[in-house]
Amino acid sequence: MKINAARVKADLEKLAEFGRTDRGITRPTFSEADLACQEMLKAIMVEYGMKVYTDAVGNLIGRWEPPGTEGKPAIAVGSHTDTVPNGGPFDGALGVIAGVECVRALSEAGHKPNHPIEVIAFAEEEGYHLAATFGSRAMMGEVKREELDKRKASNLPTLAEAFRKVGLDPDRLHEAKRDPGEFLAYYELHIEQGSTLEDAGETIGVVEGIVGVWRFNGHVTGFPSHAGTTPMDKRNDALVNASRLFIHIHETAKSMEGIVATVGQVGVDPGVVNVIPGQIDFSLEMRSLDESRLADLRKSIEDFLSDNDFGTLNPLVLKPPSVLDERLRNLLAETCQEGGYSWRHMPSAAGHDAQVMARHLPSAMLFVPSVDGLSHCPQEWTEWEDVYAGVQCMVDAVVRTDRADWL
Amino acid sequence: MKINAARVKADLEKLAEFGRTDRGITRPTFSEADLACQEMLKAIMVEYGMKVYTDAVGNLIGRWEPPGTEGKPAIAVGSHTDTVPNGGPFDGALGVIAGVECVRALSEAGHKPNHPIEVIAFAEEEGYHLAATFGSRAMMGEVKREELDKRKASNLPTLAEAFRKVGLDPDRLHEAKRDPGEFLAYYELHIEQGSTLEDAGETIGVVEGIVGVWRFNGHVTGFPSHAGTTPMDKRNDALVNASRLFIHIHETAKSMEGIVATVGQVGVDPGVVNVIPGQIDFSLEMRSLDESRLADLRKSIEDFLSDNDFGTLNPLVLKPPSVLDERLRNLLAETCQEGGYSWRHMPSAAGHDAQVMARHLPSAMLFVPSVDGLSHCPQEWTEWEDVYAGVQCMVDAVVRTDRADWL
Repeated sequence: MKINAARVKADLEKLAEFGRTDRGITRPTFSEADLACQEMLKAIMVEYGMKVYTDAVGNLIGRWEPPGTEGKPAIAVGSHTDTVPNGGPFDGALGVIAGVECVRALSEAGHKPNHPIEVIAFAEEEGYHLAATFGSRAMMGEVKREELDKRKASNLPTLAEAFRKVGLDPDRLHEAKRDPGEFLAYYELHIEQGSTLEDAGETIGVVEGIVGVWRFNGHVTGFPSHAGTTPMDKRNDALVNASRLFIHIHETAKSMEGIVATVGQVGVDPGVVNVIPGQIDFSLEMRSLDESRLADLRKSIEDFLSDNDFGTLNPLVLKPPSVLDERLRNLLAETCQEGGYSWRHMPSAAGHDAQVMARHLPSAMLFVPSVDGLSHCPQEWTEWEDVYAGVQCMVDAVVRTDRADWL
Repeated sequence: MKINAARVKADLEKLAEFGRTDRGITRPTFSEADLACQEMLKAIMVEYGMKVYTDAVGNLIGRWEPPGTEGKPAIAVGSHTDTVPNGGPFDGALGVIAGVECVRALSEAGHKPNHPIEVIAFAEEEGYHLAATFGSRAMMGEVKREELDKRKASNLPTLAEAFRKVGLDPDRLHEAKRDPGEFLAYYELHIEQGSTLEDAGETIGVVEGIVGVWRFNGHVTGFPSHAGTTPMDKRNDALVNASRLFIHIHETAKSMEGIVATVGQVGVDPGVVNVIPGQIDFSLEMRSLDESRLADLRKSIEDFLSDNDFGTLNPLVLKPPSVLDERLRNLLAETCQEGGYSWRHMPSAAGHDAQVMARHLPSAMLFVPSVDGLSHCPQEWTEWEDVYAGVQCMVDAVVRTDRADWL
């Protein structure tokens, strides 16, 4: 079941024209560009005999159900077509085209699958109007009606408003919900958005899980006083205190392995050249696949702050890690191995629809390399050979899954 | 020669009304408020038989030249009447009123001095229009004509423009220059603007000198990358690098004594919660009475930066320390001792007109305590008993100076 590389390339190039500006690709969900993009996908799906519909929240679904597969749980392959503002051509689009290519390759090869195949382009994965991975969360029944009335920014419509504008009824949100039992597995092919594969010279990443992300606002205090008249031994300099903390955070995370921690924002109060800093505010983010490591690092930092009595850590986001299905990961690893690709197991640092689906049904992901690790920007790129390898692996994995007797 | 405390208090209270708003006192040089303030001082000066004039740059000068002192070098006592925006009642005003009170107290006591006494209210000490201590620098011939055409901020007049508005001719700048030989000594009584005296429970500070102030813009570099996908051991985090530097600066200055160093401003680039900082910009200020210590600390920091190859220090201001006249300092110390005041030798952390005068003629300063060390704000305060003690010391010091045969 060999893919048609030229077709995959042509599709991705065509998709990249929807929403293109001179500063990359801007294609939020429900924008004209994204609706046009869906029309293109629908045409392909219809051409290959798929049942096509847009669900109650705007997820585009194409179901290939050859004779003999009716009523059986489907193998779903998908991602999303929406982009961040000024994004690139592969984030999301690659996973949807991989799904379409699975059906096309199997169909053209005359393959008779045991299960239906669903290709899903989830709505609002990038969270333009509200929180990210909206479409998959709605399909898995995780979204409450109230969420659609929240306003992310004063210059943006709420999701409910955006719904009405394209003829969707926010009060029919619940109709998007599906029973996880309708699916055998969910797969997603995505660009890495980091440089682990590129640095290692490898082609495929089998994603172990999506790291938990814990974010905090931190404060370190001192005593603000005149930089000229306060002797060094009478100072309580918040910046010096914070510097000790930042080194502690860095060294502790480094010694732990399997976790990263970053202080990315720092504010100094009063922030004047001749006043000793009285307070430092900072952002702290830590990510790990292992929730106990996140908890351990947090405790170490809070102990450091309380031992020194100079600060606090206030949690903003405590998103738990999401471990992907072990059997599907093994299946993907075998597929890579047999395909002769250089590959590795690796965590995903970014969130994906697969993370949502994994809470409800067996789900797994493949990564292909991002040039320079770049994503969410016009420079986002993946070499075509890597794109073809990823799509081929995905097709092979779907065939292997379809035959598995243990699922 | 006892001062009239009630008169000193009344004068300072009256002066504090010129330029008063509900947010403190705003009385820049050449403002209506400052011109009105000068009128009040002129009236007192005239009343006590002083020759009064405003020089070519706006310095107000009152010269008391009793019979027998004609042509002899004068003892000058002064400070300034201009304030920072939203300033307090004592910064500058105290030193001018002390000068006026010297003449009044000696005159009323029938004292026959050997030297004229000049009371000077320097213009533009706070540098509203341009650089600070303008009036004294102009009197000592340190100002070039070009300086008057520089614009400090787009919403402010140049000094030349401000000159013309009050009838001064910027091209006559040179006429303000005086021969240092016209003066025997220059004295200035000022509030401390720090809390050294208050913390020690002392009344008078004999100022050893005005600290040199060196200011730098510093940059520490790292490599910006994704906070999720970059392992801890592959990071070059500019904030961690900067934290090590900030601790080095603090600990080195602390170990040296006689010097202070402060990082008061910090900017993080890109300053995003999920990106490892790529560059840190910071302000560094160091102050010491001893220029070699400033140079030593600078070298230590630059060595640290080059040893680690992660940053640079760019000088913005390298203002040298200004040591005040040792004989006058001893004279002031004896005056304090005989007056029974608790006192100490101490550096001044802030710049003053005395610093300028000291480059050209014997000059010295007295400090009185600032409540909570506050200054340049509406809360600026000095207890009246400390004000009286300071003014009395100044009068006694002038008498002692007038009699000194070694000057």
